[in-house]
Amino acid sequence: MNQTDWRERSRPARLERRLNFTDYDHTRDFLEDMAGLSERLGYYPDISFGRTHVSITIRAEDGAEQIDARRRALAGEIDMLFAHAEEGR
Amino acid sequence: MNQTDWRERSRPARLERRLNFTDYDHTRDFLEDMAGLSERLGYYPDISFGRTHVSITIRAEDGAEQIDARRRALAGEIDMLFAHAEEGR
Repeated sequence: MNQTDWRERSRPARLERRLNFTDYDHTRDFLEDMAGLSERLGYYPDISFGRTHVSITIRAEDGAEQIDARRRALAGEIDMLFAHAEEGR
Repeated sequence: MNQTDWRERSRPARLERRLNFTDYDHTRDFLEDMAGLSERLGYYPDISFGRTHVSITIRAEDGAEQIDARRRALAGEIDMLFAHAEEGR
């Protein structure tokens, strides 16, 4: 399935990625993994989802014009979770 | 905590409600209840969430200008889940 990479956007500065899943079970598993990651890191990105897609927005710190290293690392961790979710198919 | 009721919007026809939670644990519990409801009804509304809020959009059937009874019933079931989540605080 085609997947897009993170897109960096400005005003306000943020990273966005949309992920597609084959069915709701995979979507739900991924969301549960994301919840665990959020709790571990203490950072809660904005997440939108429907039956077979999840969109994630990681916003820069309030007022910052650049995404900091910690948030980029979070994006990388989400990529790993997603790669893992895809392996499970 | 102040809570809003469902708002009915048009073009496209949809119901929207934003719910606020005291902390991430409550948000997560509610999302898990929502997942169970979606699976039971076979209907997956669009959901957006952050650490302490959840926004739900129930769209009318493709091309329909009115929200049907089944979708209004779903809104009512979500209200009950949320009332239950609030009791648990």
